[in-house]
Amino acid sequence: MITTNLTNLTPFLPDGWLTSRLSALDKARVMLEEGNGPGGSFTGWVHLPRDYDKEEFARIQAAAEKIRSDSQALVVIGIGGSYLGARAVVELLRSPNYNLIHTDGPEIHFAGNGLSTDGLMEIIDRVKDMDFSVNVISKSGTTTEPAVAFRIFKALLEEKYGKQGARERIYATTDAHRGALKGLADAEGYEEFVVPDAVGGRYSVLTAVGLRPIACAGVDIAALMQGAADAMNALAVPGADNPAWQYAAARHALYESGKKVELLVGYEPSFRFFAEWWKQLYGESEGKQGKGLFPASVEFTADLHSMGQYIQQGERLMFETVVSFARSRRQIDIPVDPDNVDGLNFLAGKSLEYVAAQAMRGVTMAHVDGGVPNIGRTVPARDEAAAGWLIYFFEYACGLSGYLLEVNPFDQPGVEAYKNNMYALLGKPGYEEKKAELERRLNG
Amino acid sequence: MITTNLTNLTPFLPDGWLTSRLSALDKARVMLEEGNGPGGSFTGWVHLPRDYDKEEFARIQAAAEKIRSDSQALVVIGIGGSYLGARAVVELLRSPNYNLIHTDGPEIHFAGNGLSTDGLMEIIDRVKDMDFSVNVISKSGTTTEPAVAFRIFKALLEEKYGKQGARERIYATTDAHRGALKGLADAEGYEEFVVPDAVGGRYSVLTAVGLRPIACAGVDIAALMQGAADAMNALAVPGADNPAWQYAAARHALYESGKKVELLVGYEPSFRFFAEWWKQLYGESEGKQGKGLFPASVEFTADLHSMGQYIQQGERLMFETVVSFARSRRQIDIPVDPDNVDGLNFLAGKSLEYVAAQAMRGVTMAHVDGGVPNIGRTVPARDEAAAGWLIYFFEYACGLSGYLLEVNPFDQPGVEAYKNNMYALLGKPGYEEKKAELERRLNG
Repeated sequence: MITTNLTNLTPFLPDGWLTSRLSALDKARVMLEEGNGPGGSFTGWVHLPRDYDKEEFARIQAAAEKIRSDSQALVVIGIGGSYLGARAVVELLRSPNYNLIHTDGPEIHFAGNGLSTDGLMEIIDRVKDMDFSVNVISKSGTTTEPAVAFRIFKALLEEKYGKQGARERIYATTDAHRGALKGLADAEGYEEFVVPDAVGGRYSVLTAVGLRPIACAGVDIAALMQGAADAMNALAVPGADNPAWQYAAARHALYESGKKVELLVGYEPSFRFFAEWWKQLYGESEGKQGKGLFPASVEFTADLHSMGQYIQQGERLMFETVVSFARSRRQIDIPVDPDNVDGLNFLAGKSLEYVAAQAMRGVTMAHVDGGVPNIGRTVPARDEAAAGWLIYFFEYACGLSGYLLEVNPFDQPGVEAYKNNMYALLGKPGYEEKKAELERRLNG
Repeated sequence: MITTNLTNLTPFLPDGWLTSRLSALDKARVMLEEGNGPGGSFTGWVHLPRDYDKEEFARIQAAAEKIRSDSQALVVIGIGGSYLGARAVVELLRSPNYNLIHTDGPEIHFAGNGLSTDGLMEIIDRVKDMDFSVNVISKSGTTTEPAVAFRIFKALLEEKYGKQGARERIYATTDAHRGALKGLADAEGYEEFVVPDAVGGRYSVLTAVGLRPIACAGVDIAALMQGAADAMNALAVPGADNPAWQYAAARHALYESGKKVELLVGYEPSFRFFAEWWKQLYGESEGKQGKGLFPASVEFTADLHSMGQYIQQGERLMFETVVSFARSRRQIDIPVDPDNVDGLNFLAGKSLEYVAAQAMRGVTMAHVDGGVPNIGRTVPARDEAAAGWLIYFFEYACGLSGYLLEVNPFDQPGVEAYKNNMYALLGKPGYEEKKAELERRLNG
């Protein structure tokens, strides 16, 4: 269903770039399949499109219907994998301007993914006079950013609806058995959804973590899961024709050839945030032990007029991975101008989609001529099936790719460093020694 | 007014990183001042905050007042430098959610900066039943993306208001003397604003190119220009204390030491798009002749949970340039929770701004410990004066930095490559040979 074009990749790689990696890829495949490689206890996402909890899935759909009927806004509280996937899919399948233009269902606001006071106040101002609900997403319930935001929105809900009314408007997506948020949710009687143990944050968009908010935005999550299941089945087949194998091998070969930056290229404003989800997936999975491609993204043709110069003629350190959609949802033709002031009458009567398709072909050739390898991926349409496919594809290829790089693609040990410093500087009990050490450094 | 912190930079650089570059910086200063270096005919931005056209400035303010009274939406048609600066300032000083939350003035929609059909249709759907105006921004009037969008919105306006009514709602920012858009504007009697000859697109935000849309969003453009003038005066003073000299020298020294990626770091969602403006400025000015730092950006603390792992432990190829705002516009305190479920009562009663400030200190130390050099820049407040200062600062430092790198910081020869391919593939008259060549390649 999704076609891959390697024509503009292979000239940059030595013969055998793929065949020489087939054996390593097959080992990686088995490790993902059996969960017995590094980080294997976090490979629950591999069979998720088949094995997901159907009862919970139905509750997700029901809760979304309830929120769509009783709330003008949904505040989604979560950070990292607990918001990127949901926001990516809402923007991709609805719109980056969803809150402005939607005509059904609630506005969706993502909070607790940073510490900006002005950003938070803006959301509070927006929702406080609306009927709103909260979906708090946190495995532990103690991560600073979402925990702080949850304190604030919980207080706001209680003030507005009373304690019982607030309880009925708070949905907790958290650990199935333990943790601060789990304990609170049990005590208060929030409706609960599960962050599975075997699925790390950046692989969690197809669990309740992502599906709850996505369903509230009116996306057909059954079709999304079906797309992912189709990808799971297609990509489980070993061999050189497997597009996930090709992508993982290409990334590894390009990295070994000296490339340092992978640019995920989209041609739609709605794809911009999907690239942010992809950045976490690849950056956090591979960026360790001093290794890994630096993940960056651009939106063409817009960014051809900002990053285009660098891509064409700057340091030769990057390659491009393009995701394009074969069909627009709508069509519009270029109007005729009898005076042809802008000289564009040679386009009159042609569709904008046609112009965009030619632009993409021209861009690819220009960048290839400039020494930028290009991996093309064409998706039929910007719909649920394709989004599910793309999500699973990128997840699965990331697992393979991480194993080729010989890292654990499922841990993130480096994320603790800033947290520990922050806790110490904020005076968290238990961090007294660290605090003293940091303050000595800061003062001297 | 803006303070620079080099404490976390200097340990990564050899002694003399700054003093050894003072002489080259002084030469660069003179070239910018006198416009006699490479690309010197495009240094009109250097004295712009002093020499700008005061009569036109008043017309910009008057036109903004008119649009704010007669339009519910303004469609800004432009690509690259003709939209990034305006969008950056509107998001920074108003909000990334300006269209959703503003209570005065028109919605602002940026069109013609790409070829997405769905993106364009969304704007058409949104504005077609509103009273709206169009600001078309193009030096030539023939760049494909904005020209196509202008054809479409011009037709829409004419259908809605008739030919004469449309003329009164179209504002053209274009060349003062020549070009397709200039000719059309003269013939139709559009109100005209000037893209100055001596100011390239990526340096044009403080001309009518940026100021017209910015003023329509209710930003005080006089205060913005004053901030830029303050920066111009401060940064004209030669010497090792000059923060633009420090920044240019640091970038050059880090690049020579092997760094390949500069990460512009913000802590506010409203800064996210400002970084896109910055990427064009630096990427397009320096990314040539196989050289230049790759410009990327992150929003912390959000992206600590996506790119943070890579920054902490991935390839050691980047450094960070941080822009933080000392004061939030509003304040909110962390509420007390008698049950202390999340264990955060040690923060109760403290402001979120305080928590964010400690997080920033902790992040910086963590990344420095991970081998990432850090240039800190603290701005007093998120207001017009600071935005003007930052814009001029980054522009001026970019000119210096480009000269240190021995490139022409004011051309963009690589941007033509994709355009020529696109024109050829689209069958533009005059490109017949190129078309045949490309089609041979595509089919062969």
